[in-house]
Amino acid sequence: MSVEARLAELGIILPEAAAPVASYVPVVVQGNMAYVSGQLPFVDGKLVTGRLGEDVSLENGTAAARACGMMILAQIKAALIPLDRVERIVKLGAFISSTPDFADQPKVANGASELMFDVFGDAGRHARSAVGVPVLPLNAAVEVDAIIALAAD
Amino acid sequence: MSVEARLAELGIILPEAAAPVASYVPVVVQGNMAYVSGQLPFVDGKLVTGRLGEDVSLENGTAAARACGMMILAQIKAALIPLDRVERIVKLGAFISSTPDFADQPKVANGASELMFDVFGDAGRHARSAVGVPVLPLNAAVEVDAIIALAAD
Amino acid sequence: MSVEARLAELGIILPEAAAPVASYVPVVVQGNMAYVSGQLPFVDGKLVTGRLGEDVSLENGTAAARACGMMILAQIKAALIPLDRVERIVKLGAFISSTPDFADQPKVANGASELMFDVFGDAGRHARSAVGVPVLPLNAAVEVDAIIALAAD
Repeated sequence: MSVEARLAELGIILPEAAAPVASYVPVVVQGNMAYVSGQLPFVDGKLVTGRLGEDVSLENGTAAARACGMMILAQIKAALIPLDRVERIVKLGAFISSTPDFADQPKVANGASELMFDVFGDAGRHARSAVGVPVLPLNAAVEVDAIIALAAD
Repeated sequence: MSVEARLAELGIILPEAAAPVASYVPVVVQGNMAYVSGQLPFVDGKLVTGRLGEDVSLENGTAAARACGMMILAQIKAALIPLDRVERIVKLGAFISSTPDFADQPKVANGASELMFDVFGDAGRHARSAVGVPVLPLNAAVEVDAIIALAAD
Repeated sequence: MSVEARLAELGIILPEAAAPVASYVPVVVQGNMAYVSGQLPFVDGKLVTGRLGEDVSLENGTAAARACGMMILAQIKAALIPLDRVERIVKLGAFISSTPDFADQPKVANGASELMFDVFGDAGRHARSAVGVPVLPLNAAVEVDAIIALAAD
């Protein structure tokens, strides 16, 4: 089954690829590796802002992380790389806007991790770091970047 | 001397490889590079929690970073990669749970860095980033991830 | 035009490559990729310290990020890699020392990003993550690390 068909089966509609907030590019392909810039969570076109432990619930934070993951896929497509070329999601870096007493970053980051497994199966099983940060660009709740291995064209 | 013999000479007993806290995998090998997920510090089987500048001393924080490094090596072994295949520790990313007035992240991260040098010699000399964060998963004091180049099988 | 000539045209004088603050190395080359350790901002030989949202203005923070970028280039040169071998700035990781209510990390990180574009043109267009952190080594205002693809010798 193609990845696009799998997305449809899962009822996942990828968001519009967001323009970079600044002077860089969303995806750089070097050799067979795609480096994806840190993506922010858009749900229904609206940035999910706030901080875990304060004004973002675990459930909404996890959904935000999943939205970051969807934006990563949207950026790959916007870079004209068919999702079927994804050979392996190699590494996700998850930054969770957190109060100092919120320590469930792994549960939040699972929103992005489980999306990759849902969409790509074993090829979606990745290495990951998840850390708390005091604040993210535009007060986003979550930011996730990625390193993705691509099969030959 | 094999790396295992060197570990024995140093009196280093690697910990049990910790299960991922969440839905990802500890190590992804892509080409000749191993990407190791962020590892938390276990000393005598117990997670080192707390924050530098607050309830974790510089000495204990440094020992925690060393424990993260040991867990990185344990994960490599658990992924059935002999430590003798390590060609180069390429990059460590060290996240140190810190109060806003604690600025000795490099000294803490040295716990992991010096372990790599102790074990691998010049092949253990790596690039590194070390930053403060307000909180880490499960209130861990330190988290370290790694990129490691492997020699052919 | 060589990169050195371009630097001269831009009036950019690279700083003295700073010694690592600790037991690691500034640059590791693995295959055709250079991994550059997190670099701190030195302006006129003095570390830029402080925190965005507190005692570092947006303008000074952006200049600090640019200084980190210059230090990245200085480290590449100090590793005896001619800047003309830079094939692509692949990824920058920007850590911005921030109060919890400062959310303009992208504008700050642009200091480093625009430097790369100024110096390398399209080859300087990179993927990027920018996040807030509560504190950085030595109270630095900004830290930036890099992954850089190199052309064959």
